[in-house]
Amino acid sequence: MQDFSVTITPRFYETDALGHINNASIAAWFEVSRIRFLEPLGQDGLAGARDWILASLQIDFVAETFYGTDVIASITGAKIGNSSLTVVCEMTQGDQLTARGKAVLVNMDRQTKKPARVPDSLREKLAAR
Amino acid sequence: MQDFSVTITPRFYETDALGHINNASIAAWFEVSRIRFLEPLGQDGLAGARDWILASLQIDFVAETFYGTDVIASITGAKIGNSSLTVVCEMTQGDQLTARGKAVLVNMDRQTKKPARVPDSLREKLAAR
Amino acid sequence: MQDFSVTITPRFYETDALGHINNASIAAWFEVSRIRFLEPLGQDGLAGARDWILASLQIDFVAETFYGTDVIASITGAKIGNSSLTVVCEMTQGDQLTARGKAVLVNMDRQTKKPARVPDSLREKLAAR
Amino acid sequence: MQDFSVTITPRFYETDALGHINNASIAAWFEVSRIRFLEPLGQDGLAGARDWILASLQIDFVAETFYGTDVIASITGAKIGNSSLTVVCEMTQGDQLTARGKAVLVNMDRQTKKPARVPDSLREKLAAR
Repeated sequence: MQDFSVTITPRFYETDALGHINNASIAAWFEVSRIRFLEPLGQDGLAGARDWILASLQIDFVAETFYGTDVIASITGAKIGNSSLTVVCEMTQGDQLTARGKAVLVNMDRQTKKPARVPDSLREKLAAR
Repeated sequence: MQDFSVTITPRFYETDALGHINNASIAAWFEVSRIRFLEPLGQDGLAGARDWILASLQIDFVAETFYGTDVIASITGAKIGNSSLTVVCEMTQGDQLTARGKAVLVNMDRQTKKPARVPDSLREKLAAR
Repeated sequence: MQDFSVTITPRFYETDALGHINNASIAAWFEVSRIRFLEPLGQDGLAGARDWILASLQIDFVAETFYGTDVIASITGAKIGNSSLTVVCEMTQGDQLTARGKAVLVNMDRQTKKPARVPDSLREKLAAR
Repeated sequence: MQDFSVTITPRFYETDALGHINNASIAAWFEVSRIRFLEPLGQDGLAGARDWILASLQIDFVAETFYGTDVIASITGAKIGNSSLTVVCEMTQGDQLTARGKAVLVNMDRQTKKPARVPDSLREKLAAR
């Protein structure tokens, strides 16, 4: 799998009164990296997002994240199940690993709105990465 | 006009590194009070929100807002124009006025998606307040 | 353990273009319920929040959450380790369980800024609940 | 004055159920552009932000902003008063002007926490732009 990463410049309003980036903003950044990772797979923007629901999210907050330095959010793994896609993401700020997370997405059929097998076209695109 | 107010309990993630509530959260609270004010006028929830677009927003940040004490967001004025509705809101925390704002909303026709005269039914409901 | 729950009224800006509450807002609500749960334990507001860091967060999104109906966020478990506190939270909207999550917090010594044994005073307060 | 602009890639969670970017996110983006504009003036990050408080904010929402296309937030004017700084910002998405805003900031003395004359060093830096 090739590297895929998104650069996130922390925003001042994402800090909290503890002087660091609030964990809720970091959870939100996971969505940013996850969705941008899925977009080039042909799951374009809003339309693509409609095909997936987030079933679960797990984040380890390894170190504090601060305002003033870019964060690199890298997708370090993507594993396809039958109807699911597990995406692993790591965030670093400078040399410091700050957060590590895993999201399990479920592929939804647009018509039936029920979980559906991940289409072969997407499997091939992911395998080619 | 009768009193209409919404109690907002500041959330920790709404603070920023300056130790107070960030202005972007306060702008967001204006939306909360504005939408709840419009809902009982028959503009129910999401459906009602679709009928209005926000044309402009003006906020004076009179004093800092802090975590730990409820904020009362009161609608202190609502003036109907032809297709517009101007809503005035004041926020207090304890005895302190913290913010004062004005939002101009434009009534949209659902079909044409163009500005449309505010319907008489809404004018009557507002006048009766 | 007695019931502890926080009522969260979804805000319109917490919806996303899929027409439901965005998962990042739900992660943020977990913080709201967690912090309010800790506050009456003598961990008052901002001061108390400084004593804990969030080490990890895990959320299962069981069902969609929608605008227009209150969400009840209940703390259904709290387990103290040596320096950690694991808080379990469930969210329901109407009769529907919508999310279930677990946060692991680590108690920090204010001076050394290192993990420290959870003080007995807090252990007693938690046991009495 | 030279051009100063920040590119903002809309995030999916910044959309709302009306299918566009929520106005509260746009108010937040104004802060992003304003703070980045002030930083190179020697008002570095968090430290610099402490020197200014936001006194008022005015935004005209000229057209809807959508997910999927970058927004350019340009500072098109900055005018220094005695203790105040008025910053004008315009946002465009593609060829479309989407929002236009004005923020009035007040320079605060770090010690006294009262409004203070904008220092000459900052006046010179702004004049040189």
